[in-house]
Amino acid sequence: MALPELETTQYEVKDGIATITLNRPEKLNAYNAKMREELLALFDETDADDNVRVVVITGAGRAFCAGADLSSGGGTFDRKAQSGNLSRESLRVGDVYRDGGGTNTLRIYQSLKPVIGAINGPAVGIGATMQLPMDFRMASTTARFGFVFVRRGITPEAASSWFLPRLVGMQTAVEWTMTGRIFGADEALKHGLVRSVHEPDELLPAAYELAREIADNTAPVSVALARQMMWRMSAAPHPMYAHRIDSRSIQARGESADAHEGVTSFLEKRPAEFPNKVSTDMPEFFPWWEEPVFE
Amino acid sequence: MALPELETTQYEVKDGIATITLNRPEKLNAYNAKMREELLALFDETDADDNVRVVVITGAGRAFCAGADLSSGGGTFDRKAQSGNLSRESLRVGDVYRDGGGTNTLRIYQSLKPVIGAINGPAVGIGATMQLPMDFRMASTTARFGFVFVRRGITPEAASSWFLPRLVGMQTAVEWTMTGRIFGADEALKHGLVRSVHEPDELLPAAYELAREIADNTAPVSVALARQMMWRMSAAPHPMYAHRIDSRSIQARGESADAHEGVTSFLEKRPAEFPNKVSTDMPEFFPWWEEPVFE
Amino acid sequence: MALPELETTQYEVKDGIATITLNRPEKLNAYNAKMREELLALFDETDADDNVRVVVITGAGRAFCAGADLSSGGGTFDRKAQSGNLSRESLRVGDVYRDGGGTNTLRIYQSLKPVIGAINGPAVGIGATMQLPMDFRMASTTARFGFVFVRRGITPEAASSWFLPRLVGMQTAVEWTMTGRIFGADEALKHGLVRSVHEPDELLPAAYELAREIADNTAPVSVALARQMMWRMSAAPHPMYAHRIDSRSIQARGESADAHEGVTSFLEKRPAEFPNKVSTDMPEFFPWWEEPVFE
Repeated sequence: MALPELETTQYEVKDGIATITLNRPEKLNAYNAKMREELLALFDETDADDNVRVVVITGAGRAFCAGADLSSGGGTFDRKAQSGNLSRESLRVGDVYRDGGGTNTLRIYQSLKPVIGAINGPAVGIGATMQLPMDFRMASTTARFGFVFVRRGITPEAASSWFLPRLVGMQTAVEWTMTGRIFGADEALKHGLVRSVHEPDELLPAAYELAREIADNTAPVSVALARQMMWRMSAAPHPMYAHRIDSRSIQARGESADAHEGVTSFLEKRPAEFPNKVSTDMPEFFPWWEEPVFE
Repeated sequence: MALPELETTQYEVKDGIATITLNRPEKLNAYNAKMREELLALFDETDADDNVRVVVITGAGRAFCAGADLSSGGGTFDRKAQSGNLSRESLRVGDVYRDGGGTNTLRIYQSLKPVIGAINGPAVGIGATMQLPMDFRMASTTARFGFVFVRRGITPEAASSWFLPRLVGMQTAVEWTMTGRIFGADEALKHGLVRSVHEPDELLPAAYELAREIADNTAPVSVALARQMMWRMSAAPHPMYAHRIDSRSIQARGESADAHEGVTSFLEKRPAEFPNKVSTDMPEFFPWWEEPVFE
Repeated sequence: MALPELETTQYEVKDGIATITLNRPEKLNAYNAKMREELLALFDETDADDNVRVVVITGAGRAFCAGADLSSGGGTFDRKAQSGNLSRESLRVGDVYRDGGGTNTLRIYQSLKPVIGAINGPAVGIGATMQLPMDFRMASTTARFGFVFVRRGITPEAASSWFLPRLVGMQTAVEWTMTGRIFGADEALKHGLVRSVHEPDELLPAAYELAREIADNTAPVSVALARQMMWRMSAAPHPMYAHRIDSRSIQARGESADAHEGVTSFLEKRPAEFPNKVSTDMPEFFPWWEEPVFE
């Protein structure tokens, strides 16, 4: 898969860990149509590349992402005022323009690799909501968060109404989205939005340490399946839905070379060398869902 | 809309904030059929009145609400023993009498305005479960909570089995509802039932401060939409359901005078003056759901 | 109901509390096909016996349950390698073998009695996931937990993808299941997996104290209903689903001898003596669901 020319992001893979850097530091990494497209392409790349075990996403400079680029002024969110804009037209389905942020968060939700947000500074609007489908959020002490939509006259987006209550409970979700206030890393930690808070120069090392823990000890196909199981089954109406998939998975994975190696290496008290690859060895029952379409 | 004569509650609107006071202090504000009806009418009023940005609900005297009025003794919950009672007959659908508390919590769930419970003292039975669809619960140090139903031989009601696990997680939800124990503000805070605990005379000021934060900084139509998005989409089977509505909302609200004002005021570093009203300017896609009926 | 000969577990009922002890201490109570079958039979027994108000489950010796018995080595999870094994064949539905752990957790999910896990030591793999449908987990300071599946080349099972995010939130659920790390009682407490942590010799007394609080104060039929309401309605798409059942329950239970006794004893300030039994007095509307089948 050929990546597009990257203008708003940087991408690097090293020792099994991909790093995506939002890279418009002079604009506090404000989100725009190009960034949306690059992020979509990058998550296709991380899924396709077996050398990528874990994805870390962070921001260049002092911000993570300051939100939508407001350089169009009062008409920023007015799609009629921007008719003919090709990037926006690509989001059109019938009479509706898809919310751009949601295309990114739905794509991250589908990721086959764990995703760690290393939130290095202010993260506002889409800069806050784009984090929610990531598996982990780790924050610098300088991080700031704001679900500011109701202060701009619009509404929360990027499917945040589905993601945020799962992460922080309903009372906190409505407080942050109905006040639109800016809050710090401590409040984010207290309510479980972020997993941990770090000194600025210790943030990326801590993110890589967590990434290594996964990359060095686990079977890639097992992790891809576990990730989709957790995110999808948490919303199922009954545990039987999980049991149906678990049964197929334990059967398929139990026969796999990975499972033989996993148990044998454990009994032999040595590190496992898992042979199966995400690109070629996902079991037949995967995917077990039909992805709902936009309509 | 004409409010009924209020016998069990008081109602006041001041500076954009409505205060509903449960007002049977000599009965510790015990819940009865009249209170049920007045609460329904009051939430219709707060939704309809554009002068109301936020609703605060509290109790007169030393209690919030001591639960169902038990003055009928052992037959309190026995509807057969009370056949012919007109208030109860109004809840009849076929052979089933709707749970009265549930009609209130479903109505609060539908509120277009944020709701803050200022829990000033004991809150037991329906006094505890009626709080659950409120967005925020703030407690006095003198508050006490009790989901006591299993100690009275009945069961949790007011749709609390849907609301409570969303607020406090399953382990705490089953502990409180299967022991039926009375617990204090500290335990409620520790498990996230209440957002904060205050000295008795600081409770209402703190509730009004939170109300002001919303009333002074946010667009009313945006808040009404955000509230419904969070409560409803948290239960959707997939984030695509949120994305469909987000897309319509960002499109409709992005074109709105509110969004133009929201972004312009932010860029001009001045307070926003949002022109849109809940009574007249909810977008066409709202409501996006069909409310399930009782059956 | 006749219990089978118990080889891998012990069972005792005393003063209204049943204790199930996983009893292969020389194998750290490793889970095998016989234990699966005995657990299914034991939860049928606890449901059927009105003398059982609460179930406590713990492990003999120093472990709670070390996970699947790996004495078959690398082929432990390979069902093809074990064709003809009668225990496994009993799990076959068409071409799929049901996950054994899931049959236990689905059964515990259906329990009519509250279930307390007293986690006295290491609990790994199925030893961790079998706890999730229990209402309460109480841990010894010596407890260790590990959702180690991705380190063995398989995936989380026992419907844990449905249960775990409900108990600890999504961020913690993906961390534990995608790293597969072993963690202690403190981390389990911090994230809400366990309700409380106790010195080893204080664990069972604390579990029995919680069990007594339920057994001594509550109506058995009310508790059975409350338990099913909480677990099932938490996953409903709208609070109306809870309201429909609440209404039937308040009506049926309100007429019951239990409700008359519950209110009367409260007004008389004396302990209640609830006459209704789970074996004979569950209301007509129960069960209100159709259990989904394996397919």
